[in-house]
Amino acid sequence: MSEQSIAGSEQEQLPQTMKAAVMTEPGKIVFQELPIPSIGDSEVLIKVMAVGICGSDLHYYEHGRIGRFIVEKPLILGHECAGIVAAVGKKVSSVTVGTRVAIEPGTTCGHCSACKEGRYNLCPDVSFLATPPIDGAFVQYLAVREDMVFPIPDHLSYEEAALNEPFSVGIHAARRSKLQPGDTVAIMGMGPVGLMAVAAAKAFGAAQIFVSDMEEIRLEAALKMGATHAIHAKNEDPASVVKRLTGGKGVDVAWETAGNPHALRSALYSLRRGGKLAIVGLPPQDETPLSITFIADNEIDLYGIFRYANTYPSGISFLASDSIDASFLITDRYPLAKTQEALERAIHNKSGSLKVVVYPNE
Amino acid sequence: MSEQSIAGSEQEQLPQTMKAAVMTEPGKIVFQELPIPSIGDSEVLIKVMAVGICGSDLHYYEHGRIGRFIVEKPLILGHECAGIVAAVGKKVSSVTVGTRVAIEPGTTCGHCSACKEGRYNLCPDVSFLATPPIDGAFVQYLAVREDMVFPIPDHLSYEEAALNEPFSVGIHAARRSKLQPGDTVAIMGMGPVGLMAVAAAKAFGAAQIFVSDMEEIRLEAALKMGATHAIHAKNEDPASVVKRLTGGKGVDVAWETAGNPHALRSALYSLRRGGKLAIVGLPPQDETPLSITFIADNEIDLYGIFRYANTYPSGISFLASDSIDASFLITDRYPLAKTQEALERAIHNKSGSLKVVVYPNE
Amino acid sequence: MSEQSIAGSEQEQLPQTMKAAVMTEPGKIVFQELPIPSIGDSEVLIKVMAVGICGSDLHYYEHGRIGRFIVEKPLILGHECAGIVAAVGKKVSSVTVGTRVAIEPGTTCGHCSACKEGRYNLCPDVSFLATPPIDGAFVQYLAVREDMVFPIPDHLSYEEAALNEPFSVGIHAARRSKLQPGDTVAIMGMGPVGLMAVAAAKAFGAAQIFVSDMEEIRLEAALKMGATHAIHAKNEDPASVVKRLTGGKGVDVAWETAGNPHALRSALYSLRRGGKLAIVGLPPQDETPLSITFIADNEIDLYGIFRYANTYPSGISFLASDSIDASFLITDRYPLAKTQEALERAIHNKSGSLKVVVYPNE
Amino acid sequence: MSEQSIAGSEQEQLPQTMKAAVMTEPGKIVFQELPIPSIGDSEVLIKVMAVGICGSDLHYYEHGRIGRFIVEKPLILGHECAGIVAAVGKKVSSVTVGTRVAIEPGTTCGHCSACKEGRYNLCPDVSFLATPPIDGAFVQYLAVREDMVFPIPDHLSYEEAALNEPFSVGIHAARRSKLQPGDTVAIMGMGPVGLMAVAAAKAFGAAQIFVSDMEEIRLEAALKMGATHAIHAKNEDPASVVKRLTGGKGVDVAWETAGNPHALRSALYSLRRGGKLAIVGLPPQDETPLSITFIADNEIDLYGIFRYANTYPSGISFLASDSIDASFLITDRYPLAKTQEALERAIHNKSGSLKVVVYPNE
Repeated sequence: MSEQSIAGSEQEQLPQTMKAAVMTEPGKIVFQELPIPSIGDSEVLIKVMAVGICGSDLHYYEHGRIGRFIVEKPLILGHECAGIVAAVGKKVSSVTVGTRVAIEPGTTCGHCSACKEGRYNLCPDVSFLATPPIDGAFVQYLAVREDMVFPIPDHLSYEEAALNEPFSVGIHAARRSKLQPGDTVAIMGMGPVGLMAVAAAKAFGAAQIFVSDMEEIRLEAALKMGATHAIHAKNEDPASVVKRLTGGKGVDVAWETAGNPHALRSALYSLRRGGKLAIVGLPPQDETPLSITFIADNEIDLYGIFRYANTYPSGISFLASDSIDASFLITDRYPLAKTQEALERAIHNKSGSLKVVVYPNE
Repeated sequence: MSEQSIAGSEQEQLPQTMKAAVMTEPGKIVFQELPIPSIGDSEVLIKVMAVGICGSDLHYYEHGRIGRFIVEKPLILGHECAGIVAAVGKKVSSVTVGTRVAIEPGTTCGHCSACKEGRYNLCPDVSFLATPPIDGAFVQYLAVREDMVFPIPDHLSYEEAALNEPFSVGIHAARRSKLQPGDTVAIMGMGPVGLMAVAAAKAFGAAQIFVSDMEEIRLEAALKMGATHAIHAKNEDPASVVKRLTGGKGVDVAWETAGNPHALRSALYSLRRGGKLAIVGLPPQDETPLSITFIADNEIDLYGIFRYANTYPSGISFLASDSIDASFLITDRYPLAKTQEALERAIHNKSGSLKVVVYPNE
Repeated sequence: MSEQSIAGSEQEQLPQTMKAAVMTEPGKIVFQELPIPSIGDSEVLIKVMAVGICGSDLHYYEHGRIGRFIVEKPLILGHECAGIVAAVGKKVSSVTVGTRVAIEPGTTCGHCSACKEGRYNLCPDVSFLATPPIDGAFVQYLAVREDMVFPIPDHLSYEEAALNEPFSVGIHAARRSKLQPGDTVAIMGMGPVGLMAVAAAKAFGAAQIFVSDMEEIRLEAALKMGATHAIHAKNEDPASVVKRLTGGKGVDVAWETAGNPHALRSALYSLRRGGKLAIVGLPPQDETPLSITFIADNEIDLYGIFRYANTYPSGISFLASDSIDASFLITDRYPLAKTQEALERAIHNKSGSLKVVVYPNE
Repeated sequence: MSEQSIAGSEQEQLPQTMKAAVMTEPGKIVFQELPIPSIGDSEVLIKVMAVGICGSDLHYYEHGRIGRFIVEKPLILGHECAGIVAAVGKKVSSVTVGTRVAIEPGTTCGHCSACKEGRYNLCPDVSFLATPPIDGAFVQYLAVREDMVFPIPDHLSYEEAALNEPFSVGIHAARRSKLQPGDTVAIMGMGPVGLMAVAAAKAFGAAQIFVSDMEEIRLEAALKMGATHAIHAKNEDPASVVKRLTGGKGVDVAWETAGNPHALRSALYSLRRGGKLAIVGLPPQDETPLSITFIADNEIDLYGIFRYANTYPSGISFLASDSIDASFLITDRYPLAKTQEALERAIHNKSGSLKVVVYPNE
C-alpha cells in the first residue's frame, strides 16, 4: 500500500482488504477476502463497479479451459468491466481519483512487432483479464496500467460501459471487414457479441442489417438494437432470405458470431461477389468445411477476428451517443457475493437472459 | 472487311480467310479455314503470334466444362496470347498497324458496379477468350477492343508477352494479399501459375520465397525464377519446413496455386499471426475443411482470387525488365496445325513440360 | 423518335418537342423549344423533375468559364438532377418507364485506366452535364446512359434526390480522407456543398462535427444537419476553437469546402498529428501558401477532391434513411421558365438562400 | 555496472569509461571521457561501430536548433548507427553479447494512441538520439532498449547497417505514398536521403525512377543506385522532362527530399492525375505556395513524412540482398577523435562528399 499512499490526500480512504469471487475449481466459486492490490507508478487502482459475464467466463467455469488456455489453479473470472479510479500511481496524468472509466482488459507489451504495427491484439505477451493464469474482475479493486482505462461521460452507466468490451469485438469486425457506410450486412448469431455487432454495424452506417438466430428473444433484441430484418434460422435458410431481400445480389459484408458451422456457411453464401466475411465465433470443432470454389470465384475476403485493438475511445463515444442504446441488453443483475448464481443464470437461461452483470461494490 | 479497308494504306494486305484450331467436341481439335473477323470502330485486328496453353484449356479439352461453364458447341480454345496489330478501327488511337501487343483476354462491360469500382474481373458481363461460348486465340487473327491490347517493347518476345496472362494472376494475388517489399512468402504448387507467382513475389520485393511441389523439374524452375527455398512436398511437410526456416514465426503471405486441399492446409499453417493467404487454385471438391480456430486466433486474412484486374501494364514492365526472365518456362513449341498435339503434350508430360506454346502464324 | 417507339406501349405518349432554358451567352437565359432527344439502345429518356443550382452553374452564368472549360456557344446549365424514366432503349434492363431516378451527371468511358481502376471521376473522356460543350439539365427531357440513373424509393422527393449530387462530393471526401466512425471532423465553409458534407460526415459516423462559416443562416443550417459545434469565422479563429474543444488535440479529419485560403489554413491547423485534410473548394488564386513544416512534422495526409465516384447508391440510401433530412436546404423553388430568376436569386441572396431548385416539368 | 555483471561470463570484459565526442556548444566538439552507461533489465549495451552524419546533426552543429528543438546544454550528436551487443539486461532474450545490430534511434513509449495505432513515429514521448536533450551516438558505448536493436547478417557491414536509418525514411515515404511495383517515380533532391530513397523506390519495384539535383556527383550516384533517368535541375525543368519522358502522362508517385520550394513544385507538377506526393524535405520557410487547383483537379494525395515506423527489419533485408549496394555512398571516414573534422567535411564538401561516417571504436 505504500505506493498508493504517495498519491496522497486526493484519494479516498481505501480499505486494507477486499472481496473477490474466486473460482477455486471449475464449477465452484468461493467468496474470499483478499488484500487490495498495490499499484505501480504507471498504474491506477480501480474500484470495480460493473462486470458483464461473457461466454468465455462460462466456458472456463464449465470446462476449465479454452483451447491452449487451461485453468490450473484458482482463477478469478470476469473481464467486461468498468469502475471508478480509487488511486493513481506517481506517474499517472490522464486520470485522477474519481474518474469514471471503462477498462480494456488486455494489457500488451508495447514493444513487439505486433504492438508496433498497431495490431496489439496479436501481442504474444498480453496479460488478459480472466485468461489463465491472469486473474479477472470479479473483485472489488483492480490494478491496471494507466493506458488501459478510458474515461466515460457522466451519463453513461458503468454497466453500459462494461458492454464496450463485447462492442469492441463488433467494431473490430467492422473495421477488419471494411464495412462502409451504406453497405448491407448480414450477422449470424444474436448472442451478446452478435447483438453488440449489430450496434457496431449501425454505428458504421450500415444501410441494411440482416440478422439470424434460433431464439426469438435474441431476434427481438436485434431488431431493437437496429437490425432491419430478423431471420429465424429454425424456419428459414438465412442465406436464401438474404439473397432474396437483396434482389439476388447478396450483402456486402457478413459476420459469423455464433461459432456454428451452419451459420458460417450461411454467412458465406449470403455474400455478393467481392463480399467480405469476418469470422468472430469459434466452432467447437477445429476444421469446418468451406466452399473454396465460392470463395475464389467470388473473390471473397475472409477475415479472422481475435479480440480487438484501438476500439475503446470510439466504442465509448458510440455508446454515449443518442444513436445507440444498449442498456436493454442487461437482463440480470447480481451482487459479487452471488457471482456463482450469476454464472449459472447465464448458462441455464439462454432463451431468457441476454447479458448478466455482476456489481462488485453494491 | 469493309470497315478494315477504311484504315487504308497503312495496313498490310490482309487475307480473306485464316486458319483456326477448333475444338469440335471435347478431345477433338479440327484445323479449319474461317473468315478473318471484322472489327468495329473501337476494335483492332490482331495477327496472333503466340498462345500459351493454360490448365483451363486442358480442362475444357478433357472434360468439356469448368463449373458452370459448359462447352455446348464447337469452341476455339487459347487465351494467353500476344500478337501484332494488323488493322485498326476508325476510332482507335492508342495503337497503329504494326504495334506489337499483349492481349488481355477478358473484355468487360465498363458500366456495372464491379467495373466502376475497379474490380472489373468480377464483371458479370465479361467476354473471356476460350470460355464458352466465347471463342479463343488458337486462330491467326483475332478482333479485340482497343483497350484490351497493351504495347510491348521490341526486346520482349511474343511468347514471353503471352506469359503476362498467368503472370497477371500472380500480380493480382500479390496485390490482394497485400504483399509488401521485404515480406516472406510461401507459394504452394509450382505449375505455370505458381511459377509466374514466384516471379510476381519477386517483382513485389519479397525477401524470401518458399515454394513447394511434388515435381523436381518444377522446383528447379522455381529456384531459377527466384524462389529462395524449394520444398519437396513428397518428402517434407511444407508448413513445418517454412516454420523452421522462419525461426518458428511463419511467413507474412502464403498463396495456394495447386488446387489441392493438402497444399491449402500447408499454405494456411505456414502463416505467421496476422498473415495473409491468397487462394488461387480451385480444389476438385467444392468444400475443403479449414481450421477456423487457426484463422480466428491468428487473425488470418484469406483472399479468394478470380483472374485479375489492371495488371497488364505492370506485368509487361516487369517482364521487360532485367530482373525477371521467364522465357525458360517455355519448354514446348507447336505450330497452329498441331494444336491438338500441343494440348496432348501439356496433359501427358507434366513432369517434363512447363509451358507449351502454339504459334498461329509460323 | 423511332428507337423510342420500339419500347412500345409501356411508355407514356411523348411530345415531339420540349422546353429548355438555354444560356445563349453568359448572363442571359432564353426559354426555347427543342426537339426531344433521341436515345440509343443503352440509354434512357428522363423526364426531368428537379434540378438544383450549383456554384459552377452560377460561375458559368456570371463569368462564362471555369478554368480550362470555356463557354463558346449556347449552353444549357444544370447538373444536379432527378426525374422519371419516360422511355428506355432496347437493351435497357435495370429500369422501366415510370422508374423514379437520380441522375449521375458525369458519363465516363469505362475503358481508360482511370475508369478501370475505379477512379472514373478522373476519366479524361467524361461527358459532364453543363460543362462546356456538354448541355445540362435545365430541360424537360434528357437522354442518359442507363448506368447513370439510380432508382430512388417512393418516399424520397425528386428535389432531395437532386441533392445527391452535392452530397456525393461529401461522401467522396469522407472516403478519400478515410473518415472512420467515431472520428472528430472539422468542415470549413457551409455553402450547400459544405452542408451536404456535414450530412456525409454524419452518415459516416463522425462523433463530433465542427463547422465554420461567415453567415449565420448557414451555421444554423449546419447545426440542423448534424454539426455539433458551429464557429462563426468572423468572430473566432476556427482552428483555435477546434483545438480548444478537442482538449488541445485537434480533429482526425478536416475538409475545406469554401475555396478560401484562410479556411484552408484553418482546416489544416485544426488537425491532430496524423490527421487528414480533404480539399474540396477551389481558391480563386491558383497558388495558396501552405505550411509544409506543419504537414511534414505532423504527417498530415492531404487529399485533393475532384467530383466523386461510386457514390450514388450509398448517397440515395442515406438520403432515404431516417437519419438524414436534407430537404430543409431547399429554400427557393422556380419553374423552368424562370431559370434566369432562379440563377439571379442564387447569386444575390447568399445570406438568405441555401439551395435554389428549378422544376422543369411543373 | 552491477546489472551488467549479472549477464556474466558471456560478455567481454567492459572498460569503466569510454570516449565521447560532445558538442559543448554549437560549432565546438570536445573529445571527452565518460562513464560507460548502465543498462536496465530490458536494455542492451551496444559497442558503437559506425555512425553516419545526417543533415540534422549538421544543423544542430551549425545553428544550435531545429524548429522547437533547441540545444541548451552540451549534446552528443549522431543517430545513424550500428554496433555490436556488449552486454544485455536480465530480461533480454532476442540478442546476446556479440550480436551485430542496427540501432533504431527513436525509443517510443508504446502506450499512447499513436504507438497503439502503429504510428509510433508520432509518439509525443519519443526519445530520439541526438535530438535535444537526448544524447546521441558519437560515443563508444550506448544503452538502448532491447526492441530498438535489429540483428544484421554477417556480410552486412556496420557502416551499411547505419545507412538503414536514412533508408528507413525512403521506405516510409514509399509506404505512405503507396508506391506499387511497376509504378513510375520522380524523386527531387539527391542528398543522402534522396539517394537512399532511390534505393527504396527500387526495392519497392518502381519501373522507372526519375531523379533531379543540382550536383553532378549526386546524379551519378543516383544512377548507380538504380535511378533510370537523371535530370540536371540547373539546366532543365524537372517536371517538364518527367512529363515528356512519360509520354505526357506524369509519374504515379513523386517525393521531395531537398526541402526546396522549387523542387516541391517540380515534384507536384511531375505527377499524373491521381498521383501521390510525399514531402520528406523541410523548406527553410514555413509556408510554401502550392497549386491547390492542381491538387484538387487531379485528385493528388499529398503525404507529410516524419521519420518512419516499422522499417528496420525490411530495410536490413533489402540492404543485405544482392539487389541493393549502397556502400559506395560512404565517401569519407573518420575516427571518433576527429568527429569535428567529419562534421566540417560534411558541411563544406557538398559537391564531393555523399555520406560521412564516424567509427567510434577504431
